[in-house]
Order: sequence, then structure tokens, then C-alpha cells
Amino acid sequence: MTLINAQCRLAARPEGLPKSSDWDLVEKAASEPRDGEFRVEVEYLSVDPAMRGWMNAGRSYVPPVEIGEVMRAAGIGRVIDSRHPGFTVGEHVYGVFGVQRYAVSDGQGVTRVDTTLAPAPVHLGVLGISGLTAYFGLLDVGRPEPGQTVVVSGAAGSVGSVVGQIARIKGCRAIGIAGGADKCRWLIEDLGFDAAIDYKRDDVRAQLREDAPDGVDVFFDNVGGEVLEAVLGRLARGARVVLSGAISQYNATEAPRGPANYMQLLVERASMTGFVIFDYADRYSEGVAQLAQWLSSGELRSREDIVRGDIARFPEVLLHLFRGGNTGKLVLALDGE
Amino acid sequence: MTLINAQCRLAARPEGLPKSSDWDLVEKAASEPRDGEFRVEVEYLSVDPAMRGWMNAGRSYVPPVEIGEVMRAAGIGRVIDSRHPGFTVGEHVYGVFGVQRYAVSDGQGVTRVDTTLAPAPVHLGVLGISGLTAYFGLLDVGRPEPGQTVVVSGAAGSVGSVVGQIARIKGCRAIGIAGGADKCRWLIEDLGFDAAIDYKRDDVRAQLREDAPDGVDVFFDNVGGEVLEAVLGRLARGARVVLSGAISQYNATEAPRGPANYMQLLVERASMTGFVIFDYADRYSEGVAQLAQWLSSGELRSREDIVRGDIARFPEVLLHLFRGGNTGKLVLALDGE
Repeated sequence: MTLINAQCRLAARPEGLPKSSDWDLVEKAASEPRDGEFRVEVEYLSVDPAMRGWMNAGRSYVPPVEIGEVMRAAGIGRVIDSRHPGFTVGEHVYGVFGVQRYAVSDGQGVTRVDTTLAPAPVHLGVLGISGLTAYFGLLDVGRPEPGQTVVVSGAAGSVGSVVGQIARIKGCRAIGIAGGADKCRWLIEDLGFDAAIDYKRDDVRAQLREDAPDGVDVFFDNVGGEVLEAVLGRLARGARVVLSGAISQYNATEAPRGPANYMQLLVERASMTGFVIFDYADRYSEGVAQLAQWLSSGELRSREDIVRGDIARFPEVLLHLFRGGNTGKLVLALDGE
Repeated sequence: MTLINAQCRLAARPEGLPKSSDWDLVEKAASEPRDGEFRVEVEYLSVDPAMRGWMNAGRSYVPPVEIGEVMRAAGIGRVIDSRHPGFTVGEHVYGVFGVQRYAVSDGQGVTRVDTTLAPAPVHLGVLGISGLTAYFGLLDVGRPEPGQTVVVSGAAGSVGSVVGQIARIKGCRAIGIAGGADKCRWLIEDLGFDAAIDYKRDDVRAQLREDAPDGVDVFFDNVGGEVLEAVLGRLARGARVVLSGAISQYNATEAPRGPANYMQLLVERASMTGFVIFDYADRYSEGVAQLAQWLSSGELRSREDIVRGDIARFPEVLLHLFRGGNTGKLVLALDGE
């Protein structure tokens, strides 16, 4: 039986938000694994802000996706054939399989997923790269101390929602910035944030003066733009700004906007530090173990925003992300045959 | 005999470059020292980029100079009367005496100056706040390692010229960015910089690709604006950007410009850190001792750009600074009676 593989390929480099003509939806016979390889049926695709950067030409922390290539995506799937001694049919695995139904892998960068610990989508969220980004970015780069004020933007997203919860677990005051009353309510009522600022409705600067009267000790930024400027204006002495992302800028068609008040870093003897989670690969297991322990104790909550569909839905789900439609980790769950 | 004090007071908050109507030149009887005070005849005034920031209203690392107040300035003078047990007539002292001929002080923040070690103006430059800013900013915040590439902007200024020389002493490759061929020649031929980029003539990005082929490990920024963006585009992995100043922005009448490519900090896992030299006050003596030793061994060269005149020349000398007219430490040497 020949399997038909559905793929979503990059057809053109988008300007601004990706449009349908930037994608090529392709159906073709799935490749067969050779010796030392195995084949995965992808079940869940991780839909991430960073994807937009991968679609641009030019130097970044990973090479761009080339025109005509299958769009890069992390995912979880099930091994369906194997000619690799380390992977057995039936196992659930995590890897960068791309936006396609079937992927062939030699095992590089692929890890087994323990679905008895938590359902597969949680391994793309709190127990996956999102949770690890929050964990190492906040604790290693942000270095919050108990009693300090931690602000996170994109707070209802897959990374931000974990950042605020870890801050709370560590005895900090956790303030989230998110878009919309529902998200803000969720942050406070379900996740235990101390305060939440709705950037679509509130004056972020005024609200920060109220919610962070002693200033912001750690700012974990997923958003950039005006939100970054607002928080730079409220830094406490010696503050740490963790640059994790800048989703407000990823689809900008004009020149991106730098923080005009970056010299607040001097005034407050503060630092702004960029990091890339892949640099922590040799400590992932430490992070996952801690996150899993907090999950099982109930101190940390996970939420996945799961959209069901086939590969053809991917472009639409990605737009949903950039429009701020998701709460928690956005996952495309691929329909079974 | 009543001494007549000449003072330069702030008359209005400038927009853009300070103009003559922003200043009030006042002559009045000099104050007399009371018990526990002494009087100083100011001989040398330090003319610094930071002065422009002190003239603006609003929160910064020091309070603004108020309208009607004597303009803030550090200087060196001679004690001419004393009712203070710690200060003797005839001694040379350093302090923030303001832009005036005579100042009365209770000794707070005033230090004795050893003019046998070096002439008084050197104590405003290499052995003063400028040299200490270079020393602690580069070594403590920038943390360069031998063999690394250090870039400094405002390289022909009082801070930048010392930064590049310390980088060279520490075995780094020192690259200066300055305005004009004469300054660039001085950096290379007299101070031992490895390369100098003339931002008025060269394409800074192109020249950096050539002069810093492996990227920039430490960038000590005194300038901001386009120069900061150009260097952010050439950072090496794990680079440190030291924010010491942003002279290109101090007189801007439009909204200041933030570095549009600040997310290069993420791409290169780099940091940008602000610092204020006053935080190192308890380590000044360590810094001065090391700088003095390098001066006496000839490894470090000092240069002062000394303008002679009276208090009324101050506004013009400050404009000279913002027009990039000086090479080395700009000092106003006050005429004797």
C-alpha cells in the first residue's frame, strides 16, 4: 500500500501576514524509509510565532526555509515503519517533521515522548520547547528573586503562560500582558497571576505604574514594539529584560520598530539579553523533569488550544496565531485516515 | 575684598542644541564659606556629553538641573579659604562645583587631586570619571577576553579613546568609530587602535565586515543611532553591548530612535547592558591606580582638548562637543584674574 503524503510547502516569501499564495499544498506518494531510517505519521503540529521568521530570507538563528521546501514545524507522531534499531513501530516521537502527514527520519533530533506522563499535545506545550523556553529563559536569563516583580508579554501564549506560573511558584509577583478580557481573566483566575493587563483596552504604562509600583525586575518579552517600550519605562534598578520574541514585529511590512527608550537600560543599570532555547539542549531533561513535577503537583497548569483538521488547514491556523486568537499552546491535530 | 563670582545658569530647557537664550550669565558677590565649609576657585571645567541630559526635565540617573540653577559640572580648582578641618588652602580638589568661578563646598563628593602625578586636566580625563567609565564599563560590563574584537564608538572622545587603549592593553583587537580622518589617524597612529572607521565618510557596516570579520565581541557605545544599528548587525555569538551613552540622540528634536534591529541580540545570544559610573564609587581608587600605572608606563596615552576662556565661553564649548569638534577630553580652562 502506498501512502499519500500531504505537504504544505513554502511557495513564496510573504510580505506581512502570509497569504494563501505563499503556500503550495502538495499530495504525493510518501517516501519510504531506508536502512537506518523510520517513518512517522504526524499527529500533532506545533504552531509557533517563530515560524514567521523562518519564512524570511537572510541570516537568523536557524537557516530560512527555502522556497519549495516543506514548511518547518515541530510535531509529534507515531512510528509506523522502522528500519532504525532505536525506534520501534508504535512509539510516539517528537521531532522537527515539517508540515506534512508523513515524515522519514534518521533519528537526528528525534526524542521519544512518554504519553503516559501527559497527553501528546502537552509535550508540544508545557513539556516541550514552549515550556523549556519559559523555564530556562526566566530562571537562567531573567534570574528572578523571591518577592521581585516579573512581567511577561504574550502572557496567554504557550511560553508566556508558563513564565508567569513559574514566577508565581518562585515567590515572585507575576504580571501578564495579554490581549482581551478573557485571556486576562484566565491568567488571574486559573493560572494565579497577580495581575493582568489587557493591552487592547488598558493604557499599559498607566496600568504598570499601578500594578508594579516598585518597578519591573524581570521582563520576559515575547512581543516587542509598544509593549516593550512601555515596560522599559517601568524598569526597576538592575532589571533584566529577556528577549524571547517579538511577535508584534514579525509580520511588519514597514521597517521594524526598535525601542526608542532603550537608554532606560542605562538609567536603571539594566540589561536586555537575547537567548535561543536550542542552546540549552543538554539541559532539556532537567527542565522537563521540573516542569513535569510541577504539572503533577498541580502547581503548574497546561492548556492547549487544539484545532483539528488536515494539513491544508495549517495556513489558516498560523494566521489564527498571529491574530492572537489562541489561548495556551496552539496545536494542529491532524485528522486520522 | 569681595570676590565676584561668574556663573552660568540654566535659563530654559533647550529643544535640540542649546542656544544662547537657554543660558543666563550672572555676576554676583561670591558666597563666603561658613563653619565646616571651604571655598574653591575653579580652574578647569569638565565638558561632558551627559550635560545635555541633565538639562532635560524628567527622571534619569541624576535629577535634572532646575531652571535658574547654576549648570552642573565637574571641575578641578584650588581651595582659597577654608573653615573645614579636612581641606587646606592651596590644595587642588575635584568636585561637582558647577559652571562658576567660585564654589563653596562642605566637602561632600570632593576629593583631593595629586597634581604631582599628572597635571590637573588629566584628572578630569584619563584619571577622572572619563577614564573610570572606560575602565569599569569595558572590563566589568563588557568583559573582553584576549583575542576578542572590541568596537567603541565616539572613539576619539574622552571615554572612547581610553576604551580602545585598554582593549589593546588587554590583548584585544581594538576598532574605533569616529568622525573624521584626523581623529581616525590619531586612533591608529598614536593610540595603537587596530582599525578606525570614519562614520562621516565610510559605510560603517561594510567597513565592519572587513575590520571585524569574526564579528564584534564587545561594543562599547557612546553614540547610539545608526552606529548602534550598524554594530548590532555585526555582533558575534554571545556579544556584550555596553551602553555608556547616546550622544547622537541627546539633541534630537524628533522622537529618539531605537535600534530597529535589536532582535540581533536574540539571534546572537547577546546582551545590552546599561551602567552608570557612580555605582563604582567604592572602586574608583582601584581604577585610578591601574590607569595611573598604565599612564606612567606609557601604555596608555592621555589627551586633553583644552579651551581657555572665562565662564561665558561655556555655552560655546558645549556646542563644540556636540558638533564633535574635540579630540580627547574637552576641558574649559578658566582664565586667571
